[in-house]
Amino acid sequence: MATLKPISTLLLFFLLLSTSAAKPGKRVRAHKPCKKLVFYFHDIIYNGKNAKNATSAIVGAPAWGNRTILAGKNHFGNMVVLDDPITLDNDLHSTPVGRAQGFYLYDKKDIFTAWLGFSFVFNSSKHKGSINFAGADPLMNKTRDISVLGGTSNFFMARGIATLMTDAFEGEVYFRLRAEINLYECW
Amino acid sequence: MATLKPISTLLLFFLLLSTSAAKPGKRVRAHKPCKKLVFYFHDIIYNGKNAKNATSAIVGAPAWGNRTILAGKNHFGNMVVLDDPITLDNDLHSTPVGRAQGFYLYDKKDIFTAWLGFSFVFNSSKHKGSINFAGADPLMNKTRDISVLGGTSNFFMARGIATLMTDAFEGEVYFRLRAEINLYECW
Amino acid sequence: MATLKPISTLLLFFLLLSTSAAKPGKRVRAHKPCKKLVFYFHDIIYNGKNAKNATSAIVGAPAWGNRTILAGKNHFGNMVVLDDPITLDNDLHSTPVGRAQGFYLYDKKDIFTAWLGFSFVFNSSKHKGSINFAGADPLMNKTRDISVLGGTSNFFMARGIATLMTDAFEGEVYFRLRAEINLYECW
Repeated sequence: MATLKPISTLLLFFLLLSTSAAKPGKRVRAHKPCKKLVFYFHDIIYNGKNAKNATSAIVGAPAWGNRTILAGKNHFGNMVVLDDPITLDNDLHSTPVGRAQGFYLYDKKDIFTAWLGFSFVFNSSKHKGSINFAGADPLMNKTRDISVLGGTSNFFMARGIATLMTDAFEGEVYFRLRAEINLYECW
Repeated sequence: MATLKPISTLLLFFLLLSTSAAKPGKRVRAHKPCKKLVFYFHDIIYNGKNAKNATSAIVGAPAWGNRTILAGKNHFGNMVVLDDPITLDNDLHSTPVGRAQGFYLYDKKDIFTAWLGFSFVFNSSKHKGSINFAGADPLMNKTRDISVLGGTSNFFMARGIATLMTDAFEGEVYFRLRAEINLYECW
Repeated sequence: MATLKPISTLLLFFLLLSTSAAKPGKRVRAHKPCKKLVFYFHDIIYNGKNAKNATSAIVGAPAWGNRTILAGKNHFGNMVVLDDPITLDNDLHSTPVGRAQGFYLYDKKDIFTAWLGFSFVFNSSKHKGSINFAGADPLMNKTRDISVLGGTSNFFMARGIATLMTDAFEGEVYFRLRAEINLYECW
């Protein structure tokens, strides 16, 4: 019987493991990312004069605003559609590895905050496919976390968190965001 | 050999469990929430006269509408940006624990239905972080289920279902929603 | 001792399995769908003359556009709200099994690309509940993958990929999309 003892211990170990695996609702998961990526994207908003260089445009505005100039009250109610180049470093003129496409909207009267729904659509030798994001962007905070909802191709079914940081801005025409993407579900 | 029999039974049990765990695609998961939360949020839509109290504003409208008054045909095509206070009870004047930020749009001509993309952004001693939501809101139904897409900080990587209920409404200016959030994936 | 040998082998097998299950971050998951569905949906955009038949309407436009005609520059900045019938085959006149509700927006000046946020809201004897989608739709590609973010009722907590294909289009008024939905997380 002595030889069976370690086996019983192992069985108990499996029992605990398996039981926890069978109740995903209560599982405490590992907080270590399975993939980490850093990109920059560059937004040049159309202001009536920069049609050639603009990468985004106002498409929605509150009653007190218009679609050429961002509205008062911290741009509350302005919705912007974007097609921003994604680069590996913070240089607007670096070769883009893809485009950030979708929209953001300003959603607070007192301070600058935004809500984002967009994708990184990659098109480079290193990255194919897309990553989809959504979440609140309280842009006065140094860093802001949004959700990685899913992805396709290289990023098939991915989930995680993207931490955004305003890397630079010039008046109300240009801003550059640094996005650190941490995936916690990789397939 | 008799003493080995229960072990074999256990092994069979583990075999079944482990096999199912190894094929996540076919797994039938537990439907019991790992976290349950109830909040209320309050929407006061801008109507040209209530700039001071309004928490939301029309920013998109169909060709037959404008951005001060919700359009005919059940507001089809109206898009509204919101920054609504979240409270623990159904009193608009309770201390908010955060803000519901994002947008909703009306998307049917025959009856009232909406589509929501927004976040709960918490800022209280009890709750930090955000929860991100999206989904259809057929608001003539007593309860409506939308998806919890993800979350940050206290709600890191959360997934689940939010059940919305119209708790009160006053004409087309104020409504209050009760949101019961059931998380089925907690990290 | 000879009889214990196969048990030890089994234990090793469980050990490997259980260990991998305990580190979800590093798990390589099965790429085989747990559910596969094919639907068609039909979009008739309002153009000022087709109020009766239209299923969608322009609600946002860039400064150079309006809300009756899709804008120049590949409709960049046009946002469209939809309530499109979903059918099981490619016939617009088949009995709908539900509605595709939400929005899309055109987000590139050089070519046609879109970003989608919408739900399939089912209402048939076979399908109840909703499926929520978001993602980039580079619609010049034959097939495009977007994310299944979640679902309710029959599609409770579902995740997966929807592959869209333009099945037909007539000028800028009608298009029909085929959506093949592959779920990789079923509850």
